[in-house]
Amino acid sequence: MKDNGLGADVVSEGELRKCLMAGFSPSDIVFAGVGKKEEEIEFAIKKNIFCFNVENEEELSIIEKFGRKYRKKINVNLRLNLNIDVDTHHYIKTAKSENKFGIDIEDAEKILNMKFDFVNIKGFHFHLGSQIKEVTPYLKGIEIVKNFCEKNNFSPEIIDIGGGFGIPYTYEDKIMLIEEFGEKITDAIKDFKINLLIIEPGRFIVGNSGVLISKVLYVKKKKTKNFIIVDAGMNDLIRPSLYGSYHLIYPAYLKNEKKLKFDIVGPICETGDYLGKDREFPSNIKRGDYIVVMSAGAYGFSMSSNYNTRLRPPEVLIDKNKIKLIRKREKYSTLFNLEKI
Amino acid sequence: MKDNGLGADVVSEGELRKCLMAGFSPSDIVFAGVGKKEEEIEFAIKKNIFCFNVENEEELSIIEKFGRKYRKKINVNLRLNLNIDVDTHHYIKTAKSENKFGIDIEDAEKILNMKFDFVNIKGFHFHLGSQIKEVTPYLKGIEIVKNFCEKNNFSPEIIDIGGGFGIPYTYEDKIMLIEEFGEKITDAIKDFKINLLIIEPGRFIVGNSGVLISKVLYVKKKKTKNFIIVDAGMNDLIRPSLYGSYHLIYPAYLKNEKKLKFDIVGPICETGDYLGKDREFPSNIKRGDYIVVMSAGAYGFSMSSNYNTRLRPPEVLIDKNKIKLIRKREKYSTLFNLEKI
Repeated sequence: MKDNGLGADVVSEGELRKCLMAGFSPSDIVFAGVGKKEEEIEFAIKKNIFCFNVENEEELSIIEKFGRKYRKKINVNLRLNLNIDVDTHHYIKTAKSENKFGIDIEDAEKILNMKFDFVNIKGFHFHLGSQIKEVTPYLKGIEIVKNFCEKNNFSPEIIDIGGGFGIPYTYEDKIMLIEEFGEKITDAIKDFKINLLIIEPGRFIVGNSGVLISKVLYVKKKKTKNFIIVDAGMNDLIRPSLYGSYHLIYPAYLKNEKKLKFDIVGPICETGDYLGKDREFPSNIKRGDYIVVMSAGAYGFSMSSNYNTRLRPPEVLIDKNKIKLIRKREKYSTLFNLEKI
Repeated sequence: MKDNGLGADVVSEGELRKCLMAGFSPSDIVFAGVGKKEEEIEFAIKKNIFCFNVENEEELSIIEKFGRKYRKKINVNLRLNLNIDVDTHHYIKTAKSENKFGIDIEDAEKILNMKFDFVNIKGFHFHLGSQIKEVTPYLKGIEIVKNFCEKNNFSPEIIDIGGGFGIPYTYEDKIMLIEEFGEKITDAIKDFKINLLIIEPGRFIVGNSGVLISKVLYVKKKKTKNFIIVDAGMNDLIRPSLYGSYHLIYPAYLKNEKKLKFDIVGPICETGDYLGKDREFPSNIKRGDYIVVMSAGAYGFSMSSNYNTRLRPPEVLIDKNKIKLIRKREKYSTLFNLEKI
C-alpha cells in the first residue's frame, strides 16, 4: 500500500506504531478515533503525523495543550456527524446523530469561532459507516458539508471522506464501481477550493484478499442437521457470530460429489461459534479435509482472540509466486508469558 | 478453586496446560469440547487426565487409537444431546438437537453396543447451556438419562451434569439457590448407583468476582444522546456487543449528584462498541473519572482481543487484603513480536 502511494488512517497508538514500522511517512498518517488518549495524542504529535480527525471540543483542548508544549501548530480536521443513515449493519453505521461519533453541525459552528494558538483547523472529515455499497450517501455528505461551509464562510483546505467502501461477500452483492465513485466524488467536490481530498476505502483493499483456511476435525450427521466441525472458531473469525455476516466457504479441493447441507462450526463451547449455516458441501467431506473461508482479509485476524485458551494461527502472505510467513503461529509459552500464578 | 477441592473441566490443550500449571492434579481434570484435535487428545492421554466427555463416534476411535498406542484404558463419558430447550441466549443454548453438541440418544445406543479395547465408557455427560437460572431443566435431563439407562440396561458409574449456573447481572435476576440445586439434584440421582457425580458450575464461581475498571476519556453531551467515552472497549469486554448482555456500571466514586442518562461506549471505531446504554450517571462525570463494569469475571478477559491494535489491560487479583498482579499489562513489543515485515 505504501509503495503504491497510499497514506494511513490510524485509530490508536498501536496502529500508528505499526504504520511507522511498515515505513509509512508520518506526513502520510491521519489519526482518527472517538477515544484518543492523552498519551496517544502526545505520541502522535511527537512523531509529526499529518493531522488529527477531531471528535469533540475536549480533544481540541488536549491537542492545543501538546501543541503549546512542543511549540507546533497541529493540523486538525473536524469530524462532523452529518446524521446520515446508510444501508449497512447497525453496528457499523457511524453517522447517525445518536451514534457516539463526530461533532454535531451546531457544535462545529461554535468551534469554528473559537480561537486556538496551536491548532490549525484545515477542514472536515465525515465517516458514514463501513461496508457502504453505493456513492449516494457520500454525495449527500459532501452537499451538507458544502452548505455548512457556505453558511459559515469557511473555506476548507482538506476534505476527508470516510467510510469503508463495501466489498462483495456473495456473488449477488452489488457494489459500486470504484471508477464511478471517483467520477461522482470529483464532480461533487469541484466547488470546494481544497488542496487535498482524502478518501478512506476501508476494507476495500484487504477484505477480499484474505482467506481463512481450516481443517475438518469431525463430520457429524444428525437427524436434524449435519455439521462440519473445523479447527477455526469464533476466536479466529468473529464476524458471523458478531454481525451475522455471511462468508462464502468452499472445500479446499472441489469435488463433483453429491451435495448435502451442513452447518460449518468451530470447536468452541458456544452455539454462537459458527462460520456458516446451511451450506452445500460435498456429502463425502471428511476428517482431515480443508475448507476455505473467503473474504477474511478484513476484520478477521485483527479481531481474533485467545478465547478458550486457543492459540491464534499464523498469517501467510502470498506475493505473486512468493510465500511469506508474516506472523508466526502462537505458542503456549507466549500465551502464558504475561501471567503469574 | 484447587485448594477447595474442585476439579477442572477443560475444552482445549491450552486450558489443560493452564490447569496443570495451576497445580490441578490430572486425575481431577475432565476434557470436554466438540472439536478436540488429535494432538490435544494425545497430549491429554499422556498427561493421564481423568476422562474425556466424548462428542461423537469418530472421537471415540481416535481415543481408542491413542489408548492402544499408550497401552492404557481411557475413561470416557458420552455427552448426550438431550434435545432440551432452556431459557437463555440462543448463542449459549447447547442441548437442542439442532446444536452442534453431543450425541443423539439413538446414536448413543449404538455406541453402547460397540466393542472397544482401550475405551472405558464410565457414564454420561449432558450440558444444557450457560447462564441457566433454575433447576428444572437439569431434573428433566437426569430423568431422560435415567430412562435411557434403564432401557439399555446400562449402569453408569459417573454422571456429569453440565451447564453453567446462572449468575445475577442485575438486581432483578432471579437465580436458584445453590442449596436448593444441591438438594433437588441429590434427590433426583439417588436411583443411579453412581460412584461420582460431576457438576460444572461454569461462570457461577468467577462471574461476579471480577470487575472491569476503566477511565473516562471524554464526556460528550449531544442533543440526541449523551456519551461517556471510556478507555475500555469491545476488545476488552465483548459481551454487550456479542450477546446484547447487560452489565451494571457504576462510577468508581459514588456522588449524590443530579443524574443524567448516558451511553457508555469504548474508543473503538464501531457503533457496536458499547458497554452500556441509557445508564443513569452523575451529570458532572468528567474526563479522568473511573467507571466500574460489574460481573466481568467470566467471558471478560478470556474473550478479549487486540482489535484496533489495542493493548490488553493487566489483571489484578485481590485476595483478602493482598493485591496481586496476575497478568501484566501488554506492551507493543509483545504485540508485534510474532509479526515480520
